[in-house]
Amino acid sequence: MWVLSLVLWAGWGEQMETVQTLMETARKDTLAYERLGELCLGIGHRLSGSKGLEEAVVWGQATMEKDGADRVWLQEVMVPHWERGEEHLWLTEPTHEELPFLSFGGSVGGVAEGEVLVVSSYDELGPRAEGKIILFNIPKETPGLEGYGDVVGYRYGGATAAAEWGATGALLRSIADGSLRTPHTGGMSYGEGAEKIPYGAITVEDAERLQWLQDRGTPARVKMSLGAKTYPDALSHNVIGEIRGTTYPDEVVIVSGHLDAWDVGQGAHDDGAGVIHALETLRLIRELGIQPKRTIRAVLWTNEENGSRGGKSYADAFGEGTFAAIESDLGGFQPIGWVSTGTGEQKAWLDRLLEGWGLPHIGNGGGVDIGHLEPHGTLLIGLRPDDTHYFDYHHAPSDTWDAVDERELREGLAHVAALTWLLANTEE
Amino acid sequence: MWVLSLVLWAGWGEQMETVQTLMETARKDTLAYERLGELCLGIGHRLSGSKGLEEAVVWGQATMEKDGADRVWLQEVMVPHWERGEEHLWLTEPTHEELPFLSFGGSVGGVAEGEVLVVSSYDELGPRAEGKIILFNIPKETPGLEGYGDVVGYRYGGATAAAEWGATGALLRSIADGSLRTPHTGGMSYGEGAEKIPYGAITVEDAERLQWLQDRGTPARVKMSLGAKTYPDALSHNVIGEIRGTTYPDEVVIVSGHLDAWDVGQGAHDDGAGVIHALETLRLIRELGIQPKRTIRAVLWTNEENGSRGGKSYADAFGEGTFAAIESDLGGFQPIGWVSTGTGEQKAWLDRLLEGWGLPHIGNGGGVDIGHLEPHGTLLIGLRPDDTHYFDYHHAPSDTWDAVDERELREGLAHVAALTWLLANTEE
Repeated sequence: MWVLSLVLWAGWGEQMETVQTLMETARKDTLAYERLGELCLGIGHRLSGSKGLEEAVVWGQATMEKDGADRVWLQEVMVPHWERGEEHLWLTEPTHEELPFLSFGGSVGGVAEGEVLVVSSYDELGPRAEGKIILFNIPKETPGLEGYGDVVGYRYGGATAAAEWGATGALLRSIADGSLRTPHTGGMSYGEGAEKIPYGAITVEDAERLQWLQDRGTPARVKMSLGAKTYPDALSHNVIGEIRGTTYPDEVVIVSGHLDAWDVGQGAHDDGAGVIHALETLRLIRELGIQPKRTIRAVLWTNEENGSRGGKSYADAFGEGTFAAIESDLGGFQPIGWVSTGTGEQKAWLDRLLEGWGLPHIGNGGGVDIGHLEPHGTLLIGLRPDDTHYFDYHHAPSDTWDAVDERELREGLAHVAALTWLLANTEE
Repeated sequence: MWVLSLVLWAGWGEQMETVQTLMETARKDTLAYERLGELCLGIGHRLSGSKGLEEAVVWGQATMEKDGADRVWLQEVMVPHWERGEEHLWLTEPTHEELPFLSFGGSVGGVAEGEVLVVSSYDELGPRAEGKIILFNIPKETPGLEGYGDVVGYRYGGATAAAEWGATGALLRSIADGSLRTPHTGGMSYGEGAEKIPYGAITVEDAERLQWLQDRGTPARVKMSLGAKTYPDALSHNVIGEIRGTTYPDEVVIVSGHLDAWDVGQGAHDDGAGVIHALETLRLIRELGIQPKRTIRAVLWTNEENGSRGGKSYADAFGEGTFAAIESDLGGFQPIGWVSTGTGEQKAWLDRLLEGWGLPHIGNGGGVDIGHLEPHGTLLIGLRPDDTHYFDYHHAPSDTWDAVDERELREGLAHVAALTWLLANTEE
C-alpha cells in the first residue's frame, strides 16, 4: 500500500515528511492546553449575545495575529441573544426541595406550577396532560453520540407537543451518560403558532425520582420559575485567519471549531477543543515555516449552539471556492476517525489521502458549521474522537478545562493539522 | 478451621444454618431497595431541624411497627437547627458568572466580597490574607475514605484560620473523588472567640480554575451571598425498635444507621443504606420467626451529620448493658470487611465469630453514633463497604437512590443481619 501510494502521488514522500514533522510538533505543543485554559478559565462561558463570546472573539483575533497569519479578519454576524436569568425548579409535593434545573436555550421565561405527568413518548400525551407539567422521561439508551439522535428531538419538540395538550410547562430528562445530578441544557424551539410554555432539563436522577413516585401513585407537583428572556439579535463575529496558498490561493481549505458555548460550563470539550485544533494548526504551520499550495483558513465560528448563524453567514459570503473543510466539534478526546460528506470521487480521494498514516475514514458526517458549505461542493470532513464520555460533559456545567486531557487534545491536533496540510497540498 | 470452630462453639452448627438462611433471605430481599426508595424518593433530604427528618422519624417508627418489632419507641433529642437558605457564589473578575456552591453546615450567613487568595495549606496564610476571600485548594490525594482525613480538618477549621488573618470569607475545594462540577458540603465549626466568616465548598473544577488564574497573575474576585441561619435547637428523635432476647434480654445488640442526611441530596449512601440495613435486619429475623438470646435493637440515629446528639443521647439514657453495636454508615456499596473498637478479648471474640463465613476483620474503627457507647465497654463494630466511589456522592447532590446498587445494598444487609444474629446468640 505504501509503495503503491508512493507511485500514485507525486511528491507524496516529501508531504509525508512534513506530515510526520507536523504531528511530532503537535504532540509536544504545550501552548495547545495553555490556550484552552485562556479560553475556558480566563474567559469562561460564551453564549451568543454574551460579553464572554465577544471577549473570545477579541482573544481569537489577537491570537491569530500574534501567530503571524497572513490575514486575520472578523466577519460580522447577527446572532440570537437569549439569556437564562435566574431560574429555579422546586418539587413542592410530596416534599419541598429545590431540584437542579437548566432551562433550554430559547425557552420563554415565566412561572408554571402543577402536577407532574411523566411520559416516555409523545404517544402517552393526551387530554390528561391539560394543566400539567409534562416530564419527558426518555432515557439515553445508547452511550455516546449514537444515543443522542434518539432523544434530541424531544428537546427541540417537547414543549410544543406538551402545549398542544394544554400542559403549562415541560421538563426533559437530561441527555447525559454520566450525571452526578448534573443537568444538561441545549437548544429548543417552538412550533409555528404553538403556545410557548417554559421548558428545561432536570437531572437523570430526578427524572427517575418522579417516575418512581408516579409508578407508586404518589402525586408530585413542581413549580418552575424561569427568568429566561430573548433580546433583539446581537452583533457577533466569525474569526477568520489564513495562510495564503502559493499555487492555488483561491482554493481554500478550512480548519475550524466554534467559539460560542452554552452558558453553564466553560465550553471546553464543546468546543474549546475544536477552537484550539484550528488555531494551533495555523500556528504550527507558521512555526515550521512551510507554505501550503492552497490557502489554509482557520475559522472560529460564532453561534453554533443556538442558530448556526456563523456557519451560514460564512458560506453565504465566502463559501464559493472552498475546496475542503474540517470541523472538530465532538470534544477533545482521543481521536478515532474521520467522517465526511462529498461525492464518491471526493470520498475516494480522502481515502487515498489518509492511507498509510491517518485515522480511518469511518462513515458519513461533517459538522453543523461546515454543513452550510455543502451547496458549494466542498468536501466536508469531521473529526471523530472517542465519545465514551462526551455526554458526561455535553452542554453541562461539567464541561470544564480539566475535563480535557492534554495528551488527547494534542493527539487530535496532530491529526487535524496533518490532514489540513495534505488537503492543502495534494495535487492529484 | 471449620472443624475447630465446631468444637469450640456449642451450637455453632445450628447458628451457622440460621446465618446461611438469613443471608440467603437478605440476598433476595426486594423490600430493601423499595424502602430505600420510600426514604430517599418519597421523603428526600432530611437535615436536623427539617420537616423531612421528622417525616423520616414517623416513617421509621411505622415501618418497625408494621414489621412486628416487640417494642418500638422514639427517644426525644434536641438537635441543632441550621438552614442553608438561598445562597450564591459569583465569580466577578476576571469574568462574571455564578459558580456552583454549597455553604457548610453551621456557617453564618452574610455577604463577603473580595479578591481570592488561593492557598494549599494554613502555612500560606499571613498578613496578605487581610480583606481577602481564602480558597483552601487542598486536593484529596488518595481516593476513598483514606484520603478524607487529610482534608476534613480544613473543613472544620478553615474559616477560623482564615479569619485570624483578617479574611472576610472562606472557600474549600470540595472533598470529592468524582466531581462533574458537583459541590460537596459537610459540617464546620468556629473556634472559640473567632470572627465568624461565611464558609462553603466550591467544586474541584472551580478550585482548579482559581488556582490557574492565580498562578498566571490574573486577579480573581468573588462575591459570596449566604442565606444561612442557625435557629434554636429543634426537637428530633432516635427511632428504636427491638426484638426481645429470650435468654439475656438485658444484654442488647444494636444494629444501626443514621436517619438524618445533608440537605442537598437524598441521603442514599449517607446513610439511607445504613437505615435499611438496620430496619431489614429486624424484619428478616421477624420474618424467619427466630428468637435471639440477647435483645436485638435497631436504632435509627438522628443528627449524626451536624452534632451527633442522637448517639450521645442514646448512650446517656440506654448505654448501660449494651453488649455490642454495629453501625453501617459508609454507603450501600459492596461490603468488604469489618472494623471494630473494643478490648483485645472482644476483638479476638469477634474474629472467632467471623470465622468460616464472614467478611474479614480489617482494622480499628466503629462509627460516629455508636462511638458514644465506648465508655460502656460495648464492642463497637463498623461495616466497611468498598469506598472507591463513596466520595463521588458523599455530602453532595449526587447522593441519590439510583446511586445505590440493589444487589450491593442487599449484600451489605446479608452480612449485617448475619453478624447481628451471631452477636445476639453466641454464648462463649
